[in-house]
Amino acid sequence: MKIVFVGSGNVATHMAHAFYAQGQQILQVWSPNFQNSSKLASLVEAQVVSSIAGLDQHADLYIVAVKDDAIAEVVGNLNTVKGIVVHTSGTTDISILSSLKDYGVLYPLQTFSKSKSLEFKSIPLCIEASDERVINRLEKVASIISSAVFHMDSKKRRLLHLSAVFACNFVNHLYSLGNQLLEGSGIPFEILRPLILETALKVQDAFPEHVQTGPAIRRDQTTIAAHLQLLKDSPELAGIYQTLSDSIKKSNQ
Amino acid sequence: MKIVFVGSGNVATHMAHAFYAQGQQILQVWSPNFQNSSKLASLVEAQVVSSIAGLDQHADLYIVAVKDDAIAEVVGNLNTVKGIVVHTSGTTDISILSSLKDYGVLYPLQTFSKSKSLEFKSIPLCIEASDERVINRLEKVASIISSAVFHMDSKKRRLLHLSAVFACNFVNHLYSLGNQLLEGSGIPFEILRPLILETALKVQDAFPEHVQTGPAIRRDQTTIAAHLQLLKDSPELAGIYQTLSDSIKKSNQ
Repeated sequence: MKIVFVGSGNVATHMAHAFYAQGQQILQVWSPNFQNSSKLASLVEAQVVSSIAGLDQHADLYIVAVKDDAIAEVVGNLNTVKGIVVHTSGTTDISILSSLKDYGVLYPLQTFSKSKSLEFKSIPLCIEASDERVINRLEKVASIISSAVFHMDSKKRRLLHLSAVFACNFVNHLYSLGNQLLEGSGIPFEILRPLILETALKVQDAFPEHVQTGPAIRRDQTTIAAHLQLLKDSPELAGIYQTLSDSIKKSNQ
Repeated sequence: MKIVFVGSGNVATHMAHAFYAQGQQILQVWSPNFQNSSKLASLVEAQVVSSIAGLDQHADLYIVAVKDDAIAEVVGNLNTVKGIVVHTSGTTDISILSSLKDYGVLYPLQTFSKSKSLEFKSIPLCIEASDERVINRLEKVASIISSAVFHMDSKKRRLLHLSAVFACNFVNHLYSLGNQLLEGSGIPFEILRPLILETALKVQDAFPEHVQTGPAIRRDQTTIAAHLQLLKDSPELAGIYQTLSDSIKKSNQ
């Protein structure tokens, strides 16, 4: 299969490597950032293209992995291509591609950083397409790099993306707040790492609501009051502590 | 070394197994719940004791791993023992043991569930003691089961425990909220698991503030507004979304 990548950020980079590792041909890479696209292209033996008008018209698949607000403009330049065009966004509706012939969505549910390599096979891929023929082809395409392919319409995908903001983005920020609390005390962040890992491992074979621990679920008001006292000079952290403790208590009434 | 356990909950169970696995003798187990203490005692070849007054007076170490508000009462029954008495609480001051001769704290920073076994060696153990001789002995004791022993006074330990509430208890609750959002949509929680695990793995060799992703850190107001619109019938979730998004933006000004 011949694949063209439009974009060279984290998603494009990880996905291009995954297809390349499975023996697929990455034909070309274009992105607004020529330096990034050159780098990605050289790593997956693809041609780097300096202008989007110069894209090959006969690839099998065009993967648009650019920022959400750049998708519409990019798509305007793909009206004449023969292959399937997909975007990789969690929040953008499939209808943004409706001016094209064959199109769809290939949304990987994962947090990517360029510097960290990943086992792509376990990453859930959510697919949606313009029609039945295209969904069947995308199903095959997705199965090349992932063993967890889910059919999902735009509405559900949006909900999943929101859910991921809670379970990933907000979670990482709580790690940061944990670290911020230790600042100046001489206690290194390193001490929290085994706890952070075990907290994530615990829900790999259980549901989080069944393994909740801590003062709020025990309704241990003495500890909660002591913690709020410790946070009396950090109104923002005290607010977050109160909000989340209330939410934990409420979820277990 | 001869060890007596006072308590038979998650912490007592995991710690007793860790010492037992390293060839230490678990002499006796007592806890308010006789069924639990019998079970733990049989697993680590210890004697189960039905009354706290029946505890052996000549063990080397007495590990008090009971609920915070039960420590004081238990300690009242340990005035005559010859060994070191430690509690395992993150929030309780060492001074609660000050009526005793040799005492200290052995606080494991981890989230325990009885059903899930753990590699104890990587769990940070925070120690504090009544004097230099006892801290030296506790250092040796802690090193038997953990390769991450930290000296920490009660004030710092309290701060660490608060930090762990953010990085573990609140994090698990955000996993729950993520799952709650998927309810009724037919999307299984399973789809979030690889993302949850990778989010924790990412900070094992990075600081969370350096790997933050998501709409708030990108200041992507379009996505934030769309998410708040999706949450318009869940004022509690919308409030948490707003509070944490504001906090992320603020941390990166």
